[in-house]
Amino acid sequence: MFKVLFQPDNVVVEVEAQSTLLQAADKAELPLNVTCGGKGTCGKCLVRVLKGDYLLRDDTVLGKAEIPACQAVVLSDIEVEIPQETKLVKHKVLIQKDNLLAEKELDLLAGYKFNPLVRRYEVTLPEPSLTENATDLNRLLVELKKHVSCSEIKIFLPALRKLAYALRDGEWNVSVDVAHIEGYGEIIDILPGKSKTDLYGLAIDIGTTTVVVFLIDLLTGSVIDKRGTYNKQAKYGDDVISRMICADEEEDGLQELQQAVLNSINELISEILVNHPHVERDFIKLVVCAGNTTMTHLLLALHPKYIRLEPYIPTAAQFPAVKIKDLGLPLYGEGLVINIPSIASYVGGDIIAGALAVGIEKTDELTLFIDIGTNGEMVLGNSDWLISCACSAGPAFEGGGITFGMRAMRGAIERIEIDNDFEVVYETIENEKAVGICGSGLIDGLSKLHSSGLIDRTGKFQTDISTNRLRQGDDGSEFVLVWAKEGGINKDIIITESDIKNLLRAKGAIFAGIRSMLKLVALEIYVIDKVLIAGGFGNYLNLDDSIKIGLLPDLDRNRYQFVGNTSVKGAQAVLLSTDAYQQSLELSKKVTYLELSVGNTFMEEFVSATFIPHTDLTLFPSLIK
Amino acid sequence: MFKVLFQPDNVVVEVEAQSTLLQAADKAELPLNVTCGGKGTCGKCLVRVLKGDYLLRDDTVLGKAEIPACQAVVLSDIEVEIPQETKLVKHKVLIQKDNLLAEKELDLLAGYKFNPLVRRYEVTLPEPSLTENATDLNRLLVELKKHVSCSEIKIFLPALRKLAYALRDGEWNVSVDVAHIEGYGEIIDILPGKSKTDLYGLAIDIGTTTVVVFLIDLLTGSVIDKRGTYNKQAKYGDDVISRMICADEEEDGLQELQQAVLNSINELISEILVNHPHVERDFIKLVVCAGNTTMTHLLLALHPKYIRLEPYIPTAAQFPAVKIKDLGLPLYGEGLVINIPSIASYVGGDIIAGALAVGIEKTDELTLFIDIGTNGEMVLGNSDWLISCACSAGPAFEGGGITFGMRAMRGAIERIEIDNDFEVVYETIENEKAVGICGSGLIDGLSKLHSSGLIDRTGKFQTDISTNRLRQGDDGSEFVLVWAKEGGINKDIIITESDIKNLLRAKGAIFAGIRSMLKLVALEIYVIDKVLIAGGFGNYLNLDDSIKIGLLPDLDRNRYQFVGNTSVKGAQAVLLSTDAYQQSLELSKKVTYLELSVGNTFMEEFVSATFIPHTDLTLFPSLIK
Repeated sequence: MFKVLFQPDNVVVEVEAQSTLLQAADKAELPLNVTCGGKGTCGKCLVRVLKGDYLLRDDTVLGKAEIPACQAVVLSDIEVEIPQETKLVKHKVLIQKDNLLAEKELDLLAGYKFNPLVRRYEVTLPEPSLTENATDLNRLLVELKKHVSCSEIKIFLPALRKLAYALRDGEWNVSVDVAHIEGYGEIIDILPGKSKTDLYGLAIDIGTTTVVVFLIDLLTGSVIDKRGTYNKQAKYGDDVISRMICADEEEDGLQELQQAVLNSINELISEILVNHPHVERDFIKLVVCAGNTTMTHLLLALHPKYIRLEPYIPTAAQFPAVKIKDLGLPLYGEGLVINIPSIASYVGGDIIAGALAVGIEKTDELTLFIDIGTNGEMVLGNSDWLISCACSAGPAFEGGGITFGMRAMRGAIERIEIDNDFEVVYETIENEKAVGICGSGLIDGLSKLHSSGLIDRTGKFQTDISTNRLRQGDDGSEFVLVWAKEGGINKDIIITESDIKNLLRAKGAIFAGIRSMLKLVALEIYVIDKVLIAGGFGNYLNLDDSIKIGLLPDLDRNRYQFVGNTSVKGAQAVLLSTDAYQQSLELSKKVTYLELSVGNTFMEEFVSATFIPHTDLTLFPSLIK
Repeated sequence: MFKVLFQPDNVVVEVEAQSTLLQAADKAELPLNVTCGGKGTCGKCLVRVLKGDYLLRDDTVLGKAEIPACQAVVLSDIEVEIPQETKLVKHKVLIQKDNLLAEKELDLLAGYKFNPLVRRYEVTLPEPSLTENATDLNRLLVELKKHVSCSEIKIFLPALRKLAYALRDGEWNVSVDVAHIEGYGEIIDILPGKSKTDLYGLAIDIGTTTVVVFLIDLLTGSVIDKRGTYNKQAKYGDDVISRMICADEEEDGLQELQQAVLNSINELISEILVNHPHVERDFIKLVVCAGNTTMTHLLLALHPKYIRLEPYIPTAAQFPAVKIKDLGLPLYGEGLVINIPSIASYVGGDIIAGALAVGIEKTDELTLFIDIGTNGEMVLGNSDWLISCACSAGPAFEGGGITFGMRAMRGAIERIEIDNDFEVVYETIENEKAVGICGSGLIDGLSKLHSSGLIDRTGKFQTDISTNRLRQGDDGSEFVLVWAKEGGINKDIIITESDIKNLLRAKGAIFAGIRSMLKLVALEIYVIDKVLIAGGFGNYLNLDDSIKIGLLPDLDRNRYQFVGNTSVKGAQAVLLSTDAYQQSLELSKKVTYLELSVGNTFMEEFVSATFIPHTDLTLFPSLIK
């Protein structure tokens, strides 16, 4: 065992021989900014060794001051500094800016009736006698059927074991907690008398990057607390593809990935419970999760292997309800975990939840719902018809594949202006010294580089422009956004031509996805009545710049709305409304899935959309004016 | 720790200080004949200490040669002899005698269609493609619904986790094991290709005294093996009442009782598997149990407390299907345990199983089905209507409350003749030296004591008769059946006047039960077309003597049939036929339950029926002739 001392946090952990510094940091609960799953390819987990011996697996980095933690094997007690930009800090709380559209308040119930998936029924039974000697269960069911509309009511052993005592302790009054799933009622708990104990549920958004948990009072419908954290699966890779590879190739990979997300959820639950000491774990009897198809498979330890391999077939799109105890969550074990169903391998329960939350299935207006993350997932339609698709935009908007790209965390550049002298004004999250650029900063940057003439419509730098910010780097032309002396990482923060290519591919994929769906129903862009943009990303999105670079359609700006994290909002609606849950099941079967890799439509659209804003300028009339 | 050496078996066990000899014998797997649950009241667990020290909890037995094992606390290494009559030996295999009606062979399926509760479906799915990209589960369900008639097919996570690999390993051929319960199908296992692995089920009769397990091939319907053993709950008391008291009053009593019956079942399973090495535990995917209501409650750890207390209300009569893993049986964990439903607290699943096995619900003949044990449980009726009742006959026919009473084990007197000189001829089971009298012997004895004039119609000894076998004992008049020198226990085997009173009460209760049911439907005894007698007891029953003492109605002898252990036969029919299972559920709701403690009918009938054969001799016309 060796001691590893991490600076500047001054945290010590002991690790086994053969451990890497990345594993040590993980053990020290100092998560590093690693996007390749520790394979030594992303170069983001850089640390400085202050004292002690180590062996580098990757000798190409020998002699550099900062070494990738994932490649450094500890050989002695060691002291290590984690630079600011390497740390995976907590997600920034969503903020609102004047010139960004504010996140729209959505109805808690998404317009559905308040009839939670788990409801408490207080019933009074006739007392038995020698002549009226029906069993406790029959007596209960006869009475309960007067209140519960399900055709069938089930009960499992653990709840049934409570029945005899509850009835007699409560003098033939009992409170019965019933889950309303898949067309039948399931009695999950029986309490004596008119129970005063509370009844709660969790609405959970399981994102590839973050996990968000809402604690909700199922008796009143009120939201008690909201918490978010990183998905601990991040250490196995940044995107769903690397997680799936890990599940497939690593021994116990699937179990580790499942445990990682459960740990993320458990951590949030513990945080919430500390802050609400009157809420006992056993009062939480329902969990509704919304995640993409891969996340849901990993949560349930269903192998996602064939989601990744053509023809991309998941095990299931509608998932069986699972007992809380069978998933190992430390809540009321007989309660249920419900996963919002998927549409296809790359359009998951998070999108169904989103569609539900914005009410796309109930509107007459032609609505485009987009969730921009690693994939651009979207649903187009109205109450009559719905199409969905997923285009692999790549991780550029989340900072992946961009030299100084990062997630929307403290110190990330989120707004950029470039003036006539090519000087840069920028804003960072929490006004910290700049450490990198997040998605909204990248969109601003791309737009401003173009409008200032620094790049052309293909994304090429105009090297004849004279400014010391535009220079030749190791990998071709690059533009300095932040000088080393102003920033927080002791080096220049730049954007390279290759970064720009990645951004163009990302924005092109999204726009091509939109066009492909429209082509399927032979409609033009301008007939879209409403565009709803979801995801944490959306909160920082500069709408004008997004349209200028050709990421979003050139529609009247008031047709746009930002709707925030609709995944957790949809989960919340399902938790609180059996009708919304039924609708989620129907949507999962009803929404047409457009597989973009079939045929040439998408590829042709994509090529045209990798220009700024597009090869076809008539699609962007407001920019021509 | 002290060493306890048991003779004559020469078995040594080590026990903790403070252990009783009863506990030591239990640990040595030498079960003793104890009916009071080790409370020191039945006086049946007598042993002789040959060497070593002990402390007697019950000082009234101080100085006697034989001491109750349950009251003797071990104080040193000790050597103990267990007399023959104290040993609980294995149940005798059912035998047939010339002058007893042979057990009737019943149809394996009780006339129902062969459609086992778990069936294997071999299906071939269309291979997916980019354009035909339904999920694995949807693809499977579409195909399965062509074969499975259920309106809904469910699947739980563990089976779902196998799906993706099974489909691809089997090149889109899979074998799917589906349980058909409660109106829906449940996929419990998925195997790649056309699976060659076997599929088995267990039919189990959980009797208060014995447990019987049949291993059955669900693919062919053939019975592979049959085994029986004592219900290990016996050490907690002999009858359901003492078991219920134990569950209620002892710490962890319910759990211990549950574990005891599970251990009995597991022991039989292990025995069977040793003899059938090709049968793997994971191939056994269904267990169907038939037991009385208390036994079923104890198996499921449902508290039986209110079965015992007026107004005698069980928790349930229809029991939820339970995953094998949730009951802790070491078989295929995702398989199911089905309990045949009850009618009421004292008419259980064993009686429904029996009714099913003999086909009472399908016949036009007015049929009386009786299972005589501690309770006399019976069903009267035909395809139009069915009534049931339970009369507490007491344990007399099982040897309880009778000085030398015992179960039908080796050395038990099962036939008795008394000649004109009042000399006794008897037969014992396996022709061993007599050690006691079992139920069939008691019926013979009672009948012969009466026909020889030794007792009058009220059961009183005629003390003016001159024979040295009739004498005054500690508790009044008694009759010597076996002299000490002939028997196997070194003392005279006697029957006392108090024994006779107990027997008269037992037989009177049965007859009164029959009459009470008939009165409810205003029918006379002679209209009964058929009497079917079930239970191990029935195999030793002398029909003429049973009628002579007024235990059974005086009907034409050819209306009687012995049907053996119908509980396990009914379980077998349910295992092999979903239709039989459905019928069991319907019967449990359809059969009218007559509570004998309501009103005066039963009590009046009972008083009249405690005479030999009855106060109303016109009910027994053949005896008058």
